[in-house]
Amino acid sequence: MGISEEEIISRYLAPLARQNPEALGLRDDAAWLRPKSGHDLVISCDTLIAGVHFGADDPADLIAGKALAVNISDLVAKAATPVAYLLSLALPKAPDAAWMSGFAAGLKQAGRSYGCRLLGGDTTRIGGPLTITITAIGELPTGTMVRRSTAKAGDKIVVSGQIGEAAMGLLVRQQSAQTKRWGLSPAALAQFERAYLAPQPRLPLVPLLRRYATAAMDVSDGLIGDLAKLLSASGMGGVIRLDAVPFSDAARQIIAADPGQIERLVTGGDDYEILATIPAKAVEAYRREAAAFGVDVTEIGEIGAADNGLQVLGPDDKPVTFKTASFQHF
Amino acid sequence: MGISEEEIISRYLAPLARQNPEALGLRDDAAWLRPKSGHDLVISCDTLIAGVHFGADDPADLIAGKALAVNISDLVAKAATPVAYLLSLALPKAPDAAWMSGFAAGLKQAGRSYGCRLLGGDTTRIGGPLTITITAIGELPTGTMVRRSTAKAGDKIVVSGQIGEAAMGLLVRQQSAQTKRWGLSPAALAQFERAYLAPQPRLPLVPLLRRYATAAMDVSDGLIGDLAKLLSASGMGGVIRLDAVPFSDAARQIIAADPGQIERLVTGGDDYEILATIPAKAVEAYRREAAAFGVDVTEIGEIGAADNGLQVLGPDDKPVTFKTASFQHF
Repeated sequence: MGISEEEIISRYLAPLARQNPEALGLRDDAAWLRPKSGHDLVISCDTLIAGVHFGADDPADLIAGKALAVNISDLVAKAATPVAYLLSLALPKAPDAAWMSGFAAGLKQAGRSYGCRLLGGDTTRIGGPLTITITAIGELPTGTMVRRSTAKAGDKIVVSGQIGEAAMGLLVRQQSAQTKRWGLSPAALAQFERAYLAPQPRLPLVPLLRRYATAAMDVSDGLIGDLAKLLSASGMGGVIRLDAVPFSDAARQIIAADPGQIERLVTGGDDYEILATIPAKAVEAYRREAAAFGVDVTEIGEIGAADNGLQVLGPDDKPVTFKTASFQHF
Repeated sequence: MGISEEEIISRYLAPLARQNPEALGLRDDAAWLRPKSGHDLVISCDTLIAGVHFGADDPADLIAGKALAVNISDLVAKAATPVAYLLSLALPKAPDAAWMSGFAAGLKQAGRSYGCRLLGGDTTRIGGPLTITITAIGELPTGTMVRRSTAKAGDKIVVSGQIGEAAMGLLVRQQSAQTKRWGLSPAALAQFERAYLAPQPRLPLVPLLRRYATAAMDVSDGLIGDLAKLLSASGMGGVIRLDAVPFSDAARQIIAADPGQIERLVTGGDDYEILATIPAKAVEAYRREAAAFGVDVTEIGEIGAADNGLQVLGPDDKPVTFKTASFQHF
């Protein structure tokens, strides 16, 4: 027996909003928000659909956590501190109590760890896959938002974490026969799956991006394609070296067994790492301060003139090209 | 041949955001918003799904207009002035140019008439029905939001416009055989369909609600059920008279032919009229000032003690009950 719409809100979601009066118990037409004086808001809105962005059978708490994480990642990339979010939940059928309680628990935990509160939203029934839209709201001192379009010639191109982990996680989940040939350890398989199911937005980078980055974005549709978008938005070109891109030991093991997989690693989606451009003289400070927060950042290349576009150099210094630079829905 | 994701954004949606720098050309991870000092934001998020909230074959410009209208209606009910919105568009397939251009035109016109600008959003592909989520943002002087939960004993219950028009419009579109028996004129049929396809949020009421209303909400899931929600949120009861509910001449013609249809009129969804509670001594001023803006408002009852719940009185002064008070997704 499924849970009613009324129960979804009153029993599972309203408790998440109990401590913030602006949510009005999720029982009003809208929520209110009193912006902090001297601050701008930064707002992002992303939809996640079962079968596209997550699996319909993934654990409910991880689905909820990922939906919030990918939106928070957009705020982080803009150097905004998360403050609140709205959730629209379109469910194919009335959920059962176990699923709904897992979903609410995942949302609660994610909201706590990102410091952002549930303001409101909507619950509907869809004749299609589970569809989750989150609107995330962050704040930052007036005029300090970091954009995609402001990279400068000579800036270093820097990326956080390790690239391609989530793309491998998706492959492990969908085509385990293929990944078996690589002889990966159970720990490596779990690490890839975790990256896909439970991405971690890089919150510690918020103040550092504000201080050091000339431009930034989060890597959600593949490193190469997303970097190309940043360059295009900035009207610049750039060069990166494939052998500088940070990969995990497990990913390196795959590359050793099957060198062609490097394309999947650098063009596959769902990294939610932060790609930033940093003036050369500030790179060391950015790297050191990020490391102090437990986030590794790696210099992978440099911004150059627009006419050369994005050049990706292989280990032999020759340009490498890829079939599909990044994920497109259609 | 369908349009690519890149083209949807750059060619059809970005032009709507050209004049507002916060949207960053819809080419960044997020948008920014600089709140007006001394003001609160009011935020609403509603999802509309083909087959539930509109027909998949409805004209694209009307689909877009309705998606924005129903969200703006929530802001109006809170006495907020619309300022901006985000759009998440989940499309079952790559749209053709005619559909996409109609959709963008409808959005543009609606945005202009409500004075709110496109800030950002998301475009995805869905293995299901067309799904549109809009997050609408309004503003009002700090602390002046009108809630659902603050109706007071003795307040008059007042509703704008005419009730049940959209519910009849849906019936006309879905079961024309049934509506033929009522001998409605083509003009009446068109009026009902228009109410369903192109709801008009009551923007002129924003300053009046701020001045006069003790509580308000928009009627989206049926007058009776929504009023019951307002009473419950306020911890109050109330009495309304069915013969005081404002119906159009065409709706009255249906009631005359088939008295049972009154239930559809007062419990059917999609009215997007404003239900408000107004202190008795202010009702006349509210009515007169609304009329000056071209909006009729009608007193239909009064707030009373909680223990009596919602009483709906028929023409014979006897209480009337309905099978389903309002729309529930599940």
